[in-house]
Amino acid sequence: MRSEVAVEPVAFDPEQWTCPLPLRDYPRIVMGHGGGGSLSAELIDNIFVPAFRNEELEGMADSTVLTLPAGRIAFSTDAYVVHPLFFPGGSIGELAVHGTCNDLSMSGAKPLYLSASFILEEGLEMKTLAAIVERMAKAAREAGVRIVTGDTKVVERGHADGCYITTAGIGILMAEPAPAPMRAQVGDVVLVSGTLGDHGMTVMSLREGLSFETVLESDSAALHPLVEAMLAASDKVHVLRDPTRGGLATSLNEIAQSSKLGIRLEETALPVRPAVASACEILGMDPMYVANEGKLVAIVGREDADRVLQVMRAHPLGRDAARIGEVVAEHRGTLVARTRFGATRILPLQIGEQLPRIC
Amino acid sequence: MRSEVAVEPVAFDPEQWTCPLPLRDYPRIVMGHGGGGSLSAELIDNIFVPAFRNEELEGMADSTVLTLPAGRIAFSTDAYVVHPLFFPGGSIGELAVHGTCNDLSMSGAKPLYLSASFILEEGLEMKTLAAIVERMAKAAREAGVRIVTGDTKVVERGHADGCYITTAGIGILMAEPAPAPMRAQVGDVVLVSGTLGDHGMTVMSLREGLSFETVLESDSAALHPLVEAMLAASDKVHVLRDPTRGGLATSLNEIAQSSKLGIRLEETALPVRPAVASACEILGMDPMYVANEGKLVAIVGREDADRVLQVMRAHPLGRDAARIGEVVAEHRGTLVARTRFGATRILPLQIGEQLPRIC
Repeated sequence: MRSEVAVEPVAFDPEQWTCPLPLRDYPRIVMGHGGGGSLSAELIDNIFVPAFRNEELEGMADSTVLTLPAGRIAFSTDAYVVHPLFFPGGSIGELAVHGTCNDLSMSGAKPLYLSASFILEEGLEMKTLAAIVERMAKAAREAGVRIVTGDTKVVERGHADGCYITTAGIGILMAEPAPAPMRAQVGDVVLVSGTLGDHGMTVMSLREGLSFETVLESDSAALHPLVEAMLAASDKVHVLRDPTRGGLATSLNEIAQSSKLGIRLEETALPVRPAVASACEILGMDPMYVANEGKLVAIVGREDADRVLQVMRAHPLGRDAARIGEVVAEHRGTLVARTRFGATRILPLQIGEQLPRIC
Repeated sequence: MRSEVAVEPVAFDPEQWTCPLPLRDYPRIVMGHGGGGSLSAELIDNIFVPAFRNEELEGMADSTVLTLPAGRIAFSTDAYVVHPLFFPGGSIGELAVHGTCNDLSMSGAKPLYLSASFILEEGLEMKTLAAIVERMAKAAREAGVRIVTGDTKVVERGHADGCYITTAGIGILMAEPAPAPMRAQVGDVVLVSGTLGDHGMTVMSLREGLSFETVLESDSAALHPLVEAMLAASDKVHVLRDPTRGGLATSLNEIAQSSKLGIRLEETALPVRPAVASACEILGMDPMYVANEGKLVAIVGREDADRVLQVMRAHPLGRDAARIGEVVAEHRGTLVARTRFGATRILPLQIGEQLPRIC
């Protein structure tokens, strides 16, 4: 099969970035940038503080003191090791902000504060780091979260593949009880906020050197504004999950297993972009198992499902939202899909992942 | 100079560890353990959950919902990339718990919750991971903190050097106002909680293949019980810092710079173990710049200094505490030491670190 597509070149142009003094003397990361001495201080003063600027970070202590609003909080962390570091629609920087924000909002929390911990490879271009950090800062500003504490380590050339980032986040619950897998009930409706597999197939296509006529682009986005609208519209948003590694099928398998209920999808109802479907065909993948970084799946009480779906479709982050299945009393702990020919197939939890280093 | 010492062999014996089924089929980490599918689930169910067991973690959601006591919080993160993974007196596991607890307690906070994010190298022995995780769990239990959320990624063989760990922590302030560099005042006394350089020289000696008659051992420890006792004894504990990377000299330089005051140390007052002093001589290092992982430096109002020092010495974590200097109005922003011969030397912020990958 001929590949028909052009993956858009990565937007970041290192030549456009002007390196502030005194880092001009160090166009690349050296071991000393992780040593806690004056090189570390220069990195913080010239790269991190200007990008993340906020009063909490200014204190420059080992930890940051915060005043939280009253209420229960959500706490989460993720490591990001995506390869390559930049891809159409985003970079490791946006992923590191959006991914942790989304983990928080899947518990019904509004993300407030993030920590950012960098493991840098000796030899990483300073311009590349600056571009990643700027993209993180922009993503955080747009998501309304503050990066208030951090750390940098440097490892020898050959390790860490340029840059690994770990973020942790604190959010405040927007609704009680918090959405949780155990709250799923027989009869609930399964909604998804948009097309499946965009992030995963973008990174995979880039790595496999595939090009398509339609541009593939990561869907990386912070979903809490959408979650806020959904929770305001209904108190029957029982479960929320962002189907990242392992895709929709993995998230729904986990929900089926924790809730000890069955989930049945309608295969024809699943929204998948034609370019993603083509890429999946070429690479022999199932979009239901491909990673997303700006989509959520919701399990909602039947009586409120239409209202929640309308609210999702009215929101920029849920324009292609769809009703894709329901929670059933049969085949408990199992996810099945009714195919376009009326047959039912089991969608098992896969062993690993189709392609690693996707996020 | 002859080296006179024997670094104790690492305590962990992989053969003692019994691998639970079904991980027996995977004696080493494979890429699929980071894929979010059933291999990831096995790793979580057999390694992480049994070790970290607590009700918050049981929810197994992407984020964990917590109820915090009233009051301001501290938030911190650190990445741990120490090489080798095990050393006399500890491992990357203890460091990952103690280090982040200490960052919190240096803001006067009692650590409550940690996140733990693992970046594992394909091929890492499952037994090694299990040993690290068990040591983390033990360190957390002893420190009274709970590891409530986490993440695991796997990167290809050759990256990540076995295992990198990033922890983030949330603590609750034990005193207001929180200790902070800006609170230092002329006349304040500088106290240190014990001997300097133990952690750094242990790891360095191990890497350099040095052996000494006296066993060198990392001082890795969670310091908040000591901090709690100090804050209860005085409201004039103005600044706290744990002198990790870059050692005491780096921490005090940072305090001098942020507070725009001078700091003068008495070199003869600095507590250093003979074995550490020997190792420093052999390797050409200054113990004032060597990393500690279980020591703190405190800047305390003169009128309370003796009382705080007594409280420190009465505590198991501060038995060798000493009064080592004072905050002065001269040479603002600079750290100096009065030598044993009565001369004064400047201790500058170093460029990098004497040896990387120490924590």
